[in-house]
Amino acid sequence: MRTLKLTVEYDGTEFSGYQRQGQGERTVQSVLEETLKRLVPREDITLYGAGRTDIGVHALGQVVSLQTESSLPLERWAIALNSLLPPDAAIAKAEEAAPQFHARFSAKQRTYGYLIWTRRTRSALWGRYSLHYRGDLDVDLMRQAAQPLVGVHDFAAFARYGGNPGRTTVRDLSRLSVRRVPNGLLVTATANGFLRTMVRNLVGGLIAVGSGKAQIETLEEILATRDRVLNPIAPAAPQGLCLLRVDY
Amino acid sequence: MRTLKLTVEYDGTEFSGYQRQGQGERTVQSVLEETLKRLVPREDITLYGAGRTDIGVHALGQVVSLQTESSLPLERWAIALNSLLPPDAAIAKAEEAAPQFHARFSAKQRTYGYLIWTRRTRSALWGRYSLHYRGDLDVDLMRQAAQPLVGVHDFAAFARYGGNPGRTTVRDLSRLSVRRVPNGLLVTATANGFLRTMVRNLVGGLIAVGSGKAQIETLEEILATRDRVLNPIAPAAPQGLCLLRVDY
Repeated sequence: MRTLKLTVEYDGTEFSGYQRQGQGERTVQSVLEETLKRLVPREDITLYGAGRTDIGVHALGQVVSLQTESSLPLERWAIALNSLLPPDAAIAKAEEAAPQFHARFSAKQRTYGYLIWTRRTRSALWGRYSLHYRGDLDVDLMRQAAQPLVGVHDFAAFARYGGNPGRTTVRDLSRLSVRRVPNGLLVTATANGFLRTMVRNLVGGLIAVGSGKAQIETLEEILATRDRVLNPIAPAAPQGLCLLRVDY
Repeated sequence: MRTLKLTVEYDGTEFSGYQRQGQGERTVQSVLEETLKRLVPREDITLYGAGRTDIGVHALGQVVSLQTESSLPLERWAIALNSLLPPDAAIAKAEEAAPQFHARFSAKQRTYGYLIWTRRTRSALWGRYSLHYRGDLDVDLMRQAAQPLVGVHDFAAFARYGGNPGRTTVRDLSRLSVRRVPNGLLVTATANGFLRTMVRNLVGGLIAVGSGKAQIETLEEILATRDRVLNPIAPAAPQGLCLLRVDY
């Protein structure tokens, strides 16, 4: 038995998120598993993904692990899968992993990027990979608001409504940065793990501060409530979000 | 009468090129003209485009000019057109221009970029904006082969077959550069004007040299023939090409 680590890219626009759901939903996991079934038809391979990205969220560095009896050479895995996968999903890299490697449980850190397109006019090429925000955003205010959120905190107020009953909502957010890129801003967030919708809720908060709709201290105050119901700020739209990398 | 200069972006994947053709062809010009008709229904506006990009070619800096009696404020032109245009086309900027301004005939220089994706595995996000070349490309060889092509030359050997009967095929190519970008190479070409398919023929030649299929001197020799029939190298695929900017 071999354990493989695959680095996976996808354009999330036409996917119902990463994780397999009911029949007929086109998710990244179901498309990958069906493609694996064509490559190694005699095995029932289960995939484990590092990040369960939501509907419409993209990935350049999703990692999935699997175990297989197949002796197919490593370099053939990526090429063969890519020839079978639809254009909006691709294996960027295939690697041999230790037997105990698990894409989700072995992960030390995940990094997401969120692209905010701030040019007055929308983009014909980046529309599907960014949120278009027409107003002015003050980057310095956003950076000041981000600072107190970095560190080990209970992020329940930035989770999805009712998203994690009974589980810990404490995460170690090691980076929450905002930098200028051509025609917009890129928010980068790194943590040991993220709660559902957490990055989009953080970005929604940063946009509220940057646009002057919320004060710098507001995000810290929301964090301290540890209660999603007390967070009045809507999450930023999914299409700006991309899972950039997973560290092990 | 006002003259307007519009900077236009499009994802060329679903367009049959820039220029209006027969009925039913979805070209950038026809989509723009139909959209203008909705914005100013009482006028028959004709558009002039700086670059007649081929089917499948993209643009981040196409420029079109038009004349109108409409007194709609400048900033409304871009916003209103963008709200009516399909997602794969957008007005990046609208500007007032001098009465004699003509997007095509006033243009001094056009700059195109061509993206060659050289990672062994294909890209899920950049597939529609790049050519995937799996082999090794020697950038130094490509740069040496590009150098003698820069300058004022008769580029007939790099035109489309039978593309310019009776017209001059002399152009001033002021830049033909190759640089490394993440997972690939970007070829940038600037000239006072390009013959049909010229950039793709130049890039096809550079790839032939970079991959060792042609010698450094081969492109210069092809240029000297001034005969497309004597150029054995196929043009690079259209989806890697993008009209980046037009200078006036």
